[in-house]
Amino acid sequence: MAVTASTPEQTATTPDAGATGASDGYQTVPALDVHQVGISTPPQAHATLLGWNLNPGSGVEQLRRMMRLLSDDAVRLAAGSPALADTEEELARFPSRLTVTFGFSPQLMARLLPRQRRPRLAELPTFGQDRLQEQWGQSDVIAQVCADDPITLAHARRMLTKDARAFASIAWTQHGFRNARGTVPDGTTMRNLMGQVDGTVNPSPDDADFDGLVWSDQEGFAGGTFLVLRRIRMQMDRWDRVDRAGREATIGRRLRDGAPLTGFSEFDEPDFEATDRFGFPVIDPASHVARAHSTDPAERFLRRAYNYAVEDPDRSTGEDAGLLFLAYCADPARQFVPVQQRLDEQDRLNEWVHAIGSAVYAIPPAARPDGYVGDVLLEEV
Amino acid sequence: MAVTASTPEQTATTPDAGATGASDGYQTVPALDVHQVGISTPPQAHATLLGWNLNPGSGVEQLRRMMRLLSDDAVRLAAGSPALADTEEELARFPSRLTVTFGFSPQLMARLLPRQRRPRLAELPTFGQDRLQEQWGQSDVIAQVCADDPITLAHARRMLTKDARAFASIAWTQHGFRNARGTVPDGTTMRNLMGQVDGTVNPSPDDADFDGLVWSDQEGFAGGTFLVLRRIRMQMDRWDRVDRAGREATIGRRLRDGAPLTGFSEFDEPDFEATDRFGFPVIDPASHVARAHSTDPAERFLRRAYNYAVEDPDRSTGEDAGLLFLAYCADPARQFVPVQQRLDEQDRLNEWVHAIGSAVYAIPPAARPDGYVGDVLLEEV
Repeated sequence: MAVTASTPEQTATTPDAGATGASDGYQTVPALDVHQVGISTPPQAHATLLGWNLNPGSGVEQLRRMMRLLSDDAVRLAAGSPALADTEEELARFPSRLTVTFGFSPQLMARLLPRQRRPRLAELPTFGQDRLQEQWGQSDVIAQVCADDPITLAHARRMLTKDARAFASIAWTQHGFRNARGTVPDGTTMRNLMGQVDGTVNPSPDDADFDGLVWSDQEGFAGGTFLVLRRIRMQMDRWDRVDRAGREATIGRRLRDGAPLTGFSEFDEPDFEATDRFGFPVIDPASHVARAHSTDPAERFLRRAYNYAVEDPDRSTGEDAGLLFLAYCADPARQFVPVQQRLDEQDRLNEWVHAIGSAVYAIPPAARPDGYVGDVLLEEV
Repeated sequence: MAVTASTPEQTATTPDAGATGASDGYQTVPALDVHQVGISTPPQAHATLLGWNLNPGSGVEQLRRMMRLLSDDAVRLAAGSPALADTEEELARFPSRLTVTFGFSPQLMARLLPRQRRPRLAELPTFGQDRLQEQWGQSDVIAQVCADDPITLAHARRMLTKDARAFASIAWTQHGFRNARGTVPDGTTMRNLMGQVDGTVNPSPDDADFDGLVWSDQEGFAGGTFLVLRRIRMQMDRWDRVDRAGREATIGRRLRDGAPLTGFSEFDEPDFEATDRFGFPVIDPASHVARAHSTDPAERFLRRAYNYAVEDPDRSTGEDAGLLFLAYCADPARQFVPVQQRLDEQDRLNEWVHAIGSAVYAIPPAARPDGYVGDVLLEEV
């Protein structure tokens, strides 16, 4: 089932599944030769992010054992087979495009790996607009678990959590959602909970520069990538007071279809020079789209975001809702940080959104044959 | 779009939606003449249960105003239209079979309604196996909000929560899930997180006795029903220690397909007289299926359960997972309580499952023309 390195994953369906929608549960995402799945994979409906911290005193051997076990779980579950120690094997029957993607923190790698084995990955600089909460901070290890079916996802989460218990403790769990499979046509840009089309400017695996933007070519890490994860809380109650014109001016795009205020459809290029009859720019230079825009084609990254909405822990404001912003890129410092620094400096949207969690991870390439995710970094250390 | 009282809801799709799965988001559940929707409706993939307590000092007029507002929201959102005060109207575009079903507690009705207007609804008796937590207890008002799409559901939840704020405070929010639309063929009995087929014995709207089991004929409440809501926590870690034979003996059904241990397929009648070669009953008389079984056809009710899985509040045991057990019936005391009393008295499953929340609600019939849900109880008081 392996496909070549730069091809986005194809979805496979078992032959007996037929043409009806009722067999979507059999769809699988086949493994890739060089990259982990769950990155160029078209986003599934649901995501659970699991953050672990290795037990105190654990060394590279413990991490190896954990990753061998979790990698094996991931491969089996993605194929619609039970995990080795699966106690609810019937819940593995419908993989529903399940993928599990693993990553390591820079701190963990600094602790466990000799300098020459570590992929270059800096922590993010401090952003003045952030309101970080320790509970959503950096963990040693991450698993991004995605599937179109919520029961499948709950089962996979439980298997991974159980198998990791001997080695690590859960730092946090984050749940995210997009539209259910089939609600909107494939390829439709998702809307966030503010109602905005979110993620229009996003490299596609069909783009000629996709590989260069997403996959690392660092020696010993080729085919890997880096993940920037930001938990962005939206101040929904305060956003409610802004009318549609104000919202569109804040973003620089129309709510109805996501078109830039100077354009007619979602994928039109914004015209930042256009002025209205009073001579004012149609797209406010302080709008989100203007501030995020770069003339440097390298300042782009693959967004794979999910909405989140949980009950507010202190119940005072009703709910904590926003966006699990996930960006994959070959070089966060070069591609992501300049954009975020511009937004941090000025962006009308900053009045209503703040990161409450922030972390970065090295996402190793695919496991070697008969190996496990991370083997390229962890073996023979 | 109204259909006759006893007909289960049909799903309507807009004419331009075509035959592809990508337009499932346009599916709506039309209103019924006599009953609320969301009861005989084939269960959607996701449910959010909202429990409210009326503000101190509120009277029937406040409840009327709240129900007028929320009923109007429900009708509009179910049709794929924005709510009146909708600030994210684009998120209403794909109703995805959204239904909102409202109910009132016996305590609220005793407080606000004269005796002769109150439908007869007793609180549940105490069950010795329950481990009730106050945070999941009885609320004054409930809304069962269901949809196949999680973004649609999040938006509906927010609209209802905002519009209720002036009248009531949130007691709890409970999220549940079944298989995503299209994962399994329509009509497949769901599995719970223990991996069991759950809900095999369930009246179908096609059954001759469905109406009598589900819809009340109490004077002044005809076409209404009653909801028993139980939050049933599963001790998943302890359940893990039970092997498959032990699990099947506990339930009395096969894990693979839900067939009774004496049968060949899911819907075979269990044979409680059958013995094995040693003369022991094949289905343990203390098994869940044996204890739940009744020879009295009146001891049946409509189950419409959802799985739940949330992070354990104290993080010590990993997660709090189980079942949001929802049962609709014309007379809980006659239909539900005897079954639950038998299970409470003896059921091998009790070693691993306990209700941590419990509540009952009167579910009024459909709103009158130009009325609101509950009008039959609340008008002219």
